[in-house]
Amino acid sequence: MWNLTHDDVEAIAIGAGILGTGGGGNPYIGKLRMQQILKQGHTVQIIQLEELADDALICEVGWMGAPTVGVEKLPNGEESNRVIEALESYVGKTIDAIACSEVGGSNSMAPLEAGALTNKPVVDSDAMGRAFPEMQMSTLFINGVACTPAAMVDEKGNCIVLGKMTDSFALEKFARDLCVQMGCTSLLAPGVMTGAEAKAHSVPRTLTLVKRVGEAVLHARAVKSNFVDAVLNVTGGKEIFAGKMVDVQRRTIAGFARGQLVAEGLGNYRGDYMHIAFQNENLVAWRGSRDSRDEVVACVPDLICMLESDSGEPITTEQLRYGLRVNILAIPCTDKFRTEQALKIVGPAAFGYPDVIYVPLPKTPGQGIE
Amino acid sequence: MWNLTHDDVEAIAIGAGILGTGGGGNPYIGKLRMQQILKQGHTVQIIQLEELADDALICEVGWMGAPTVGVEKLPNGEESNRVIEALESYVGKTIDAIACSEVGGSNSMAPLEAGALTNKPVVDSDAMGRAFPEMQMSTLFINGVACTPAAMVDEKGNCIVLGKMTDSFALEKFARDLCVQMGCTSLLAPGVMTGAEAKAHSVPRTLTLVKRVGEAVLHARAVKSNFVDAVLNVTGGKEIFAGKMVDVQRRTIAGFARGQLVAEGLGNYRGDYMHIAFQNENLVAWRGSRDSRDEVVACVPDLICMLESDSGEPITTEQLRYGLRVNILAIPCTDKFRTEQALKIVGPAAFGYPDVIYVPLPKTPGQGIE
Repeated sequence: MWNLTHDDVEAIAIGAGILGTGGGGNPYIGKLRMQQILKQGHTVQIIQLEELADDALICEVGWMGAPTVGVEKLPNGEESNRVIEALESYVGKTIDAIACSEVGGSNSMAPLEAGALTNKPVVDSDAMGRAFPEMQMSTLFINGVACTPAAMVDEKGNCIVLGKMTDSFALEKFARDLCVQMGCTSLLAPGVMTGAEAKAHSVPRTLTLVKRVGEAVLHARAVKSNFVDAVLNVTGGKEIFAGKMVDVQRRTIAGFARGQLVAEGLGNYRGDYMHIAFQNENLVAWRGSRDSRDEVVACVPDLICMLESDSGEPITTEQLRYGLRVNILAIPCTDKFRTEQALKIVGPAAFGYPDVIYVPLPKTPGQGIE
Repeated sequence: MWNLTHDDVEAIAIGAGILGTGGGGNPYIGKLRMQQILKQGHTVQIIQLEELADDALICEVGWMGAPTVGVEKLPNGEESNRVIEALESYVGKTIDAIACSEVGGSNSMAPLEAGALTNKPVVDSDAMGRAFPEMQMSTLFINGVACTPAAMVDEKGNCIVLGKMTDSFALEKFARDLCVQMGCTSLLAPGVMTGAEAKAHSVPRTLTLVKRVGEAVLHARAVKSNFVDAVLNVTGGKEIFAGKMVDVQRRTIAGFARGQLVAEGLGNYRGDYMHIAFQNENLVAWRGSRDSRDEVVACVPDLICMLESDSGEPITTEQLRYGLRVNILAIPCTDKFRTEQALKIVGPAAFGYPDVIYVPLPKTPGQGIE
């Protein structure tokens, strides 16, 4: 158990941006909001999964939508309270603690903000150990935890409870349509789970992990050491490319930022090109020539993370632009996404790449995403 | 107070089909479902608005969607119970009675079915005195009765509560999107109102009215008298055309059946043509030539009703086809739709016909829709 500080938020924003693999919402805006909330005197208690009673009631809180819209249409500040109230109204019980749905991007901040504003502790865990674009891509829902009731609100005052869905794919479809109708960003509180379920199926200690990743970058920046090494030292994985963007195609469609990019190698990678396809998050990275994708270097569910080469700042897919210089890392995902059952939902075929074979990145026990 | 009979359902289906002005869902299917429910031993008590306590809680129940889909995708029979349960869960109170949202089409049957299956009385009233395609077009919502919370279910088991909407237009937008996602038909229970609100703003005695209209047609059919006169004798209004369809354009788009038709005059109307534009319901009727709309004969919110010329059966917009012979009636709407405030929401301009001027059809006090 610890109380969140201003510096924690600074570090979490960077670490969550990196583990966001391009998505999860812009962490800079989330950071500013969270630091303002702490300045106003609110506090957040972060607790471990082990501290939850088996019959405690927990809900997740996170933003849904296109990152391209999330940086322009800002929340009004009432969303957290309203989404939790709606869920509590529907189930007729009090929610005991808040969990993170995806630790990547600004969705690391959403549960912290909700915890601060509703005076509920926030669990140091999430259901992805990264960011992913669709609701069903959750270690909880993959393992049978109910994804409903789920509440959803926008900044205009609309509030909807998805009481029962046939499955998490239906939740994704309905919530995505509602999100588009809400103007492409909404705050969502999906699922009301028990402490026992959270303990069994969450990815543990991910808030701590992104904080450590962020601290490593901040430290490397302060002492002018290599931030790529600093990140990999915490997360495991490897650098797969360094270069500059020479082509970015992106459109905001059906509630997502979808597209592809080509980067031209610099330094050790001169002469090589890297192609990356994304749907909010980076999905598949290929090494190749300017015009061809020759070899898959990394793919979902492993993480493909982009850091701005000068500062180590994470690059989200809505910030991609011609000329940007980046280091690209591949980081091993949680073991909970590496089962046969999970790969059907989060493997490359689930994103429309049936020909891409997932080869798990080697993982060092005790390091990185658990 | 009266208990619904098998013969009542027969008559209501015809009368509601006529007052449905082409929409409200196919009354034939609603009739078969309702008669089966009565055969199974269920009963429905119809009560008058005056019998409601001022603090009683009432919700509406009705189908949303495109009539073209409603005749093919049938309910599974559990929808009524699930939609009321969801609403009761959300408000944490028991609903005392069920009201009709639109008496036109099969939506006259939806509250009767819900009343039978949940053992709640059904109020002899509605919020339109006809059918209309969009949620905000309600004497209740126009007069400030809250349209939320609203519950919505489909035949697959999905259930959604629209907890709070900025207004009834937002409810229409969100519910319509959800309805499309649900496969273009959903059962909706919008609004939880008090007895006092229902008494102040409903259109009274409309179940009785459609039953009387249906009985008039059945009687005319039995004694081979003129069913047009029989209908107009109960509803007021006038015949505006008789002829056969020579052109029907219709598409199912954005959750509606939209289109236009041209009918060629027969008998007294030989040489004339009538053009009608519809969005689920018939909106505007023009007299003209084969290719031009010359003069508005009737328009929303007054009712433009089509009866099959041989049988007096109401024709819904999904049944329109080349060669069909019809009598077309114009019937005066409820006074509650004739206020300046209401006409902004249900007048021709609200449907995209700003150049059509609404001239209220003359009305005989004590006759027709109150």
